[in-house]
Amino acid sequence: MKAQLLTIGDELLIGQTTNTNAAWLGGRLSRLGVRMTRTVTVGDTPDTITQELDRAYEEARLVICTGGLGPTHDDRTRDVVAEYFGAPLRTDADLLARVRQYYEQRSREVPESGRALAQVPEGFEVLENPVGAAVGLWHEAADGRLIAVLPGIPAEMKAIFDASVEPRLEQQPGVGEVRHRTLVTAGIPETLLQERLGDLSEALRDDVSLAYLPSTSGVRLRLSADAEQTRAEARLDEVAAVIRERAGDYIIGTGDLTLEMVLADTLRDRDATIAAAESATGGLIGHRLTGVSGASDYFLGSVVAYANAVKQAVLGVRAETLREHGAVSEAVAIEMADGARAALDATVGISTTGIAGPTGGTPKKPVGTVWVGVADADGAHATHHQFVEDRTLNKELFASAALERARRSLV
Amino acid sequence: MKAQLLTIGDELLIGQTTNTNAAWLGGRLSRLGVRMTRTVTVGDTPDTITQELDRAYEEARLVICTGGLGPTHDDRTRDVVAEYFGAPLRTDADLLARVRQYYEQRSREVPESGRALAQVPEGFEVLENPVGAAVGLWHEAADGRLIAVLPGIPAEMKAIFDASVEPRLEQQPGVGEVRHRTLVTAGIPETLLQERLGDLSEALRDDVSLAYLPSTSGVRLRLSADAEQTRAEARLDEVAAVIRERAGDYIIGTGDLTLEMVLADTLRDRDATIAAAESATGGLIGHRLTGVSGASDYFLGSVVAYANAVKQAVLGVRAETLREHGAVSEAVAIEMADGARAALDATVGISTTGIAGPTGGTPKKPVGTVWVGVADADGAHATHHQFVEDRTLNKELFASAALERARRSLV
Repeated sequence: MKAQLLTIGDELLIGQTTNTNAAWLGGRLSRLGVRMTRTVTVGDTPDTITQELDRAYEEARLVICTGGLGPTHDDRTRDVVAEYFGAPLRTDADLLARVRQYYEQRSREVPESGRALAQVPEGFEVLENPVGAAVGLWHEAADGRLIAVLPGIPAEMKAIFDASVEPRLEQQPGVGEVRHRTLVTAGIPETLLQERLGDLSEALRDDVSLAYLPSTSGVRLRLSADAEQTRAEARLDEVAAVIRERAGDYIIGTGDLTLEMVLADTLRDRDATIAAAESATGGLIGHRLTGVSGASDYFLGSVVAYANAVKQAVLGVRAETLREHGAVSEAVAIEMADGARAALDATVGISTTGIAGPTGGTPKKPVGTVWVGVADADGAHATHHQFVEDRTLNKELFASAALERARRSLV
Repeated sequence: MKAQLLTIGDELLIGQTTNTNAAWLGGRLSRLGVRMTRTVTVGDTPDTITQELDRAYEEARLVICTGGLGPTHDDRTRDVVAEYFGAPLRTDADLLARVRQYYEQRSREVPESGRALAQVPEGFEVLENPVGAAVGLWHEAADGRLIAVLPGIPAEMKAIFDASVEPRLEQQPGVGEVRHRTLVTAGIPETLLQERLGDLSEALRDDVSLAYLPSTSGVRLRLSADAEQTRAEARLDEVAAVIRERAGDYIIGTGDLTLEMVLADTLRDRDATIAAAESATGGLIGHRLTGVSGASDYFLGSVVAYANAVKQAVLGVRAETLREHGAVSEAVAIEMADGARAALDATVGISTTGIAGPTGGTPKKPVGTVWVGVADADGAHATHHQFVEDRTLNKELFASAALERARRSLV
């Protein structure tokens, strides 16, 4: 099945927002075996939206539109879609009640514009929005052509796609022809991983392809098999086995798992708790650990000790250690991890102290340097890592290194 | 001047790469007053590239293509452009010498495919690439239509745009015609802001337009004036003044400022320091504050007290307060803010305690509830907010509320 994506919003054209929806949807469709052939972005101009909707609807069996479904005057997508399909807008009583409730919970009257949120073009199905007020819309034409209209806010778009669009696509003939399997790695950079895996052509043959998908928490290896289902699964098993043999314990799981989720499972399995002491990561370790629902089962807390005085007062790092070794050092990383473990009474304490940049680097401790500490009942140690020059990337890479060291200390 | 962008590459369609080039170019063109009306992404398929190149060239005076200029077999853009313009490819001797040198420096032979890098369609100008081997191409038609063909690697695309495309655009008549100004708000949802601003048509008239750009840290208001420069700036001043009068202190700045940056400036101005006590935000407040380089000037640290035992042990929250009011309560938010301020010895302490979801909600304290505490030399208080049902969004919204309350306490 071919698909085209139409993303709508002036903010995308003038560069105030990066179009992350396109990449996310492209990845999702690709996993379903739906082939995205084109994505288009236009502004909030009804004529242009109509023109592009028409082109996309002519060229692809599935069209996904995102953006322009909100309650304000520059949200034009609902009207344009209704007019394009000659489908009059009617007010859905259930939706209107929910919109009222949504505003009431916020102690506000429904604004005149809010009523647009309850309007549905005739012949369109409502796709529930679990995280916001603007619902999605779905239409299946008699000739099999499909259109999904979704909000532009990424969290809302994703929630509706997962809950309502993907299940509908899975029921379509021809969807799911390509089978995928993803192996999740951590703690090894892409180039080293490539060297370790070496030449895989004998294993991959003609029917399986391999893509390296690097991110700040590790490289995912995506295998795609283009074959009938049973055969495809067997081939994916074969290739995955070869990769596991070569990559060893750098493989931490399969599928949509994240490093945080793997660590969560490991901690739960061992009935262990974790606490962090963060300097260079500034709170990101805690933020990532608490991104997983149910984190209170094992995550006790984190002390973000940005100032040295806080390292001393809250974590018990000794003044002489700071003086002798500097804040970015093995000794301080160890005392921070020990301190977090003791102050928060956790099974495992982890720490980061480094230089995220862009300033603060020295020839001996350049930007990208980090010491990661791990403390448990057996003692404490720290490892040194050297990452990149970008502040945002470094914070993510430092946090990933700490989470991966914690996971390794538990297995 | 109207522009369209054609980005080329399979990796963009299947979601392996996020299209950051589109946002970057959109921002650059917008600042030049060139209006991007459409961006299109297609794969490395010559027919499709030709079709979209034709559409773009019909609809806009400026077309920018990115991607598909490298030396590999799936780089098709050079051939497609040459064929579309009926311009035979000739090998440029200077370029070939440089390609040889490029490969020599890397101790490699020039591969057969590498020769493509030295080919230029007749009538096209070469745009030097200061950071890579693939040069850009530029064409001005007799009727004034412009096309720039650039590599897809962001660093190369940006370097060529800055060095060669922008200067050429600045010499074109009509460039610089749309001026933008952005007013940044915080602490007020989009719909309430709309109500407050009311009907602006008298101020906007025909020559200024207004867009609402919501995000989890606030709504940005973007004004665009389509007029000659001096007149445009005067009109933007006029409309901005009307908006400022109506939106009052919800406007926290202009331009590309973020809430964190405004808070940073406010703290620096007052020689103040800040510390946080985070429960529901899990470290995100610290992460966001330390996203700004130089945060160590005012950010001391944060105690992520996810477990109640940590709230007591590190922040000094009293057991009876937790027992009587529950962890998500005004009283606990106040004691947490006070505790962070005292334990970290800061001018201002802020806190969050809430229910990010998806689990843990009750009828009295539904998912999305948060208490935000602020403590300073004058005492401590807390405010209640009710946000949404999505965990990730809630964490961002809770953190934004806390940062905004901290900013307000200082002004």
